[in-house]
Amino acid sequence: MNKEKPTAVLLLSCPDTRGIVAEVSRYIFENNGNIIHSDQHTDRETSTYFMRIEWELDGFRVPRGGIAASFDSIARMFKMNWSLHFSDCRPKIAVFVSKTDHCLYDLLLRIKSGELAADVVTVIANHEDLKTVADYFSIPFRCLPSDPANKSADEALTAGLMDEMGIDLIVLARYMQIIGEGLVGKYKNRIINIHHSFLPAFVGAKPYHQAYSRGVKIIGATSHYVTAELDQGPIIAQDVAQVSHRDSVEDLIRKGKNLEKNVLSRAVQLHLENKIVVFGNKTVIFD
Amino acid sequence: MNKEKPTAVLLLSCPDTRGIVAEVSRYIFENNGNIIHSDQHTDRETSTYFMRIEWELDGFRVPRGGIAASFDSIARMFKMNWSLHFSDCRPKIAVFVSKTDHCLYDLLLRIKSGELAADVVTVIANHEDLKTVADYFSIPFRCLPSDPANKSADEALTAGLMDEMGIDLIVLARYMQIIGEGLVGKYKNRIINIHHSFLPAFVGAKPYHQAYSRGVKIIGATSHYVTAELDQGPIIAQDVAQVSHRDSVEDLIRKGKNLEKNVLSRAVQLHLENKIVVFGNKTVIFD
Amino acid sequence: MNKEKPTAVLLLSCPDTRGIVAEVSRYIFENNGNIIHSDQHTDRETSTYFMRIEWELDGFRVPRGGIAASFDSIARMFKMNWSLHFSDCRPKIAVFVSKTDHCLYDLLLRIKSGELAADVVTVIANHEDLKTVADYFSIPFRCLPSDPANKSADEALTAGLMDEMGIDLIVLARYMQIIGEGLVGKYKNRIINIHHSFLPAFVGAKPYHQAYSRGVKIIGATSHYVTAELDQGPIIAQDVAQVSHRDSVEDLIRKGKNLEKNVLSRAVQLHLENKIVVFGNKTVIFD
Amino acid sequence: MNKEKPTAVLLLSCPDTRGIVAEVSRYIFENNGNIIHSDQHTDRETSTYFMRIEWELDGFRVPRGGIAASFDSIARMFKMNWSLHFSDCRPKIAVFVSKTDHCLYDLLLRIKSGELAADVVTVIANHEDLKTVADYFSIPFRCLPSDPANKSADEALTAGLMDEMGIDLIVLARYMQIIGEGLVGKYKNRIINIHHSFLPAFVGAKPYHQAYSRGVKIIGATSHYVTAELDQGPIIAQDVAQVSHRDSVEDLIRKGKNLEKNVLSRAVQLHLENKIVVFGNKTVIFD
Repeated sequence: MNKEKPTAVLLLSCPDTRGIVAEVSRYIFENNGNIIHSDQHTDRETSTYFMRIEWELDGFRVPRGGIAASFDSIARMFKMNWSLHFSDCRPKIAVFVSKTDHCLYDLLLRIKSGELAADVVTVIANHEDLKTVADYFSIPFRCLPSDPANKSADEALTAGLMDEMGIDLIVLARYMQIIGEGLVGKYKNRIINIHHSFLPAFVGAKPYHQAYSRGVKIIGATSHYVTAELDQGPIIAQDVAQVSHRDSVEDLIRKGKNLEKNVLSRAVQLHLENKIVVFGNKTVIFD
Repeated sequence: MNKEKPTAVLLLSCPDTRGIVAEVSRYIFENNGNIIHSDQHTDRETSTYFMRIEWELDGFRVPRGGIAASFDSIARMFKMNWSLHFSDCRPKIAVFVSKTDHCLYDLLLRIKSGELAADVVTVIANHEDLKTVADYFSIPFRCLPSDPANKSADEALTAGLMDEMGIDLIVLARYMQIIGEGLVGKYKNRIINIHHSFLPAFVGAKPYHQAYSRGVKIIGATSHYVTAELDQGPIIAQDVAQVSHRDSVEDLIRKGKNLEKNVLSRAVQLHLENKIVVFGNKTVIFD
Repeated sequence: MNKEKPTAVLLLSCPDTRGIVAEVSRYIFENNGNIIHSDQHTDRETSTYFMRIEWELDGFRVPRGGIAASFDSIARMFKMNWSLHFSDCRPKIAVFVSKTDHCLYDLLLRIKSGELAADVVTVIANHEDLKTVADYFSIPFRCLPSDPANKSADEALTAGLMDEMGIDLIVLARYMQIIGEGLVGKYKNRIINIHHSFLPAFVGAKPYHQAYSRGVKIIGATSHYVTAELDQGPIIAQDVAQVSHRDSVEDLIRKGKNLEKNVLSRAVQLHLENKIVVFGNKTVIFD
Repeated sequence: MNKEKPTAVLLLSCPDTRGIVAEVSRYIFENNGNIIHSDQHTDRETSTYFMRIEWELDGFRVPRGGIAASFDSIARMFKMNWSLHFSDCRPKIAVFVSKTDHCLYDLLLRIKSGELAADVVTVIANHEDLKTVADYFSIPFRCLPSDPANKSADEALTAGLMDEMGIDLIVLARYMQIIGEGLVGKYKNRIINIHHSFLPAFVGAKPYHQAYSRGVKIIGATSHYVTAELDQGPIIAQDVAQVSHRDSVEDLIRKGKNLEKNVLSRAVQLHLENKIVVFGNKTVIFD
């Protein structure tokens, strides 16, 4: 976390074979890079290799803009899926909300305190309720009421806005609308949702009511990337809290809010620190 | 837990109305009982009142054998479902197992150490594997191979055995057979199962494999009373553990074993200490 | 939590003897009160009895203002320490802060959302930094710089302010000054502090640095009532989080902030719901 | 964890500098090794680099016996502290006990089930009580009553025994004696103790009684390597459990036993899987 000096982060996955670490670390060393983190994982079932490697840009002989090009031959040699990130870039976030404010406040306060290194450049809502929150943090607020009759036009408008503002990450902070497939496809693994339940339990609406009816002793919250299939995207983070027969549905909702805030901000942080690799419908979390 | 002196425990539920505590506590006080625990709960949705009250038998003017009769008029006045228990009775337990030994060992060691106040009087199995475990603890072991063609006869045999031995509680310690409806009906709220998953997630077979495939970050275990509907009985206790992409299915199974032991023994302890009231498909746990 | 109707709460402790529940519940029943919660505890070591009993005021024959007087004879019979509370009273809170804002925000947002039923009527600080936060929530902010040379005068000023505003509860939300004995004596069991460590570990300054140096794998936070002896008051709530060698001191501080917020708000909630009885240097928490 | 094929594990620490990963991975690659795990950590304060790298022996061109010699030049180049381990070696463990059996049972059952890959070759005790446990698992039991008047002779005897049996790891499973400095020095970072408290809290005797007196809401257990200074060695693993005013000292002890078992076995497992590097008084845990 003490990133005094800017670093480069390489996230990659490829078929497992001998020599990947050797070749990647040789590339960095020969260009005078100082590796400060290196983590890897091999999925045995699919023989897939995953790596996250981070090195200081200071003293690195390849200029920042040339790294991708110079690394490309290695990437091709090992048939890598890969992405390159720089720790001093502040991604632009659009937060989508409805009427519930706890996740929005939580994200904005963590950004304000420097805990999350990003900028929220817009709050998009389907209700006007949370405008005052956005105002307090001096963030442009845009209310885009969703019109069932006009869904594809609405989506196109939203997608256009995202483009215009150069949004890197969309965070659904208890946004009670389904994101259209167009936007999901365009922002693959870049839309983070908080589901107020311990997935895969209680898929769908009113999970706290379902939890209450079932008489569970533990409730949970799940943060995941959004895919076309509702609540089925790759899970990033989960947390749970104990409940008892004394807890009403309202108590579950209250306890759930704490979970939702913590789990969503944890997921956003992992994404911002480039610690997540998605493969299939799962995540590798290099924390 | 420091039950130096024998106590009586009354567990009851009834329609909520004024005067229940007053009447029950008056009954105990007027008979010179010293209440050492009293706990209650009101379910607002159904207006149902629940109570657990425990008092010392020492000095109580009604002899142990007469308490039920003398309390009966109060119980009828409030239309109570109720049961009476004595802390110095050691219930007789039958533990049902298949091939997996961790829950069996855990239960037997906790009984041996005095942590659970009950006697396991038989270990019933559908395989011979765990006979040596039962032998070590000097507990009669009985292998009743289940024959799909002869299910009702097998069940009748088992039910007869339970009768003969005066079994109070059946604990399914990773018993991989479905208990027949006859036995379930007879031992209503007296058969405790450990489900190796965080119910309601992953109902059914191989939950750790399902958890692995879904890429969850937390796994769980659930202990519940057995009802006719598979895995749908009232939940008594649950616990969870964190997992990551580094955990193979085998790791999940290993971590799950710790959960299963702890959750099952917790549920058995709550039952033995007469701290559970079942209502509908839920439990009130007075702990 | 679903307090649609106003209730009375009686918190009491007294020497353990027969008949307390019977007498208290008779009092409520004969005055037509409907008990909705009743919880008790007996401390065996000291033979002390504790009780929390809550009943609906609706239909209760004794008017609110007369309950204390009418209960007094029972209280004297059993030599009770007792207090009476009404669920629809909103206590007045003074929050004391220094420069750190996360606990202040957390408390104010939970009050705003209705999760905590109280009013923060002033924010007292020894620095100007958090004035903007108080302003956003429209709460009077008062900076009282502490002058070591003038301690007793400062304390008298603060105590006077608390009086004037009719403060019921003081919450130290990461306030980095020691509260004077005068104020501590006056607000006995009504000043709640958050200590950023798992008491009794790491008493004193910079606990996260100490935790880092010791190489612990878990950090904690502790909320307690303030007594004359620093960090030694009755513990109300604690929570912990896992850490590893990868966590820098800054990471511990960040993880600790989550703990501090959750633990402090939990303690304040328990206090506001009149669920805490202090005895000696410990608490009985009726949750 | 699915170690079908034998692997080599290199654990190392050295002053941080450029090129370490590159050089180590080149060494493995050029000898046709297939890296299956590689993890590293840099301690910024002390500029120390830590690495754990694991590769399959199958196909590796350097024979097992020659690896150390062939790696030596790299190790010297970077001034490494290092150790080499093979996954198919089963370390020999001596378990030291007094009268309490829960940790002993837990370790032996986990070894029996294959969860821990090691052999307990002796149980050393200062009381006869647990002989029957050792007998059940067919492990030689040796009672070495400690004689305060004869401490150094006793220690020499114990050290001699450890030598004779080729003990790799000593596990103190609630052994209530202090290990002599001679043995501590000889088995540096190879003696694991379970402390029944959340270190650094409650150092010394009867921690559960201390926790009870202090009225804590959470108790813990800590596993650490034994050093000359009592309870001050590098912490390997910790865990906690919630307690309340309802818990007597006996309840704390019971809950603590669960913690102790889980934490001790976790620490032993991490050691056996060669996932711990000690530096100064702290541990790096590559899990």
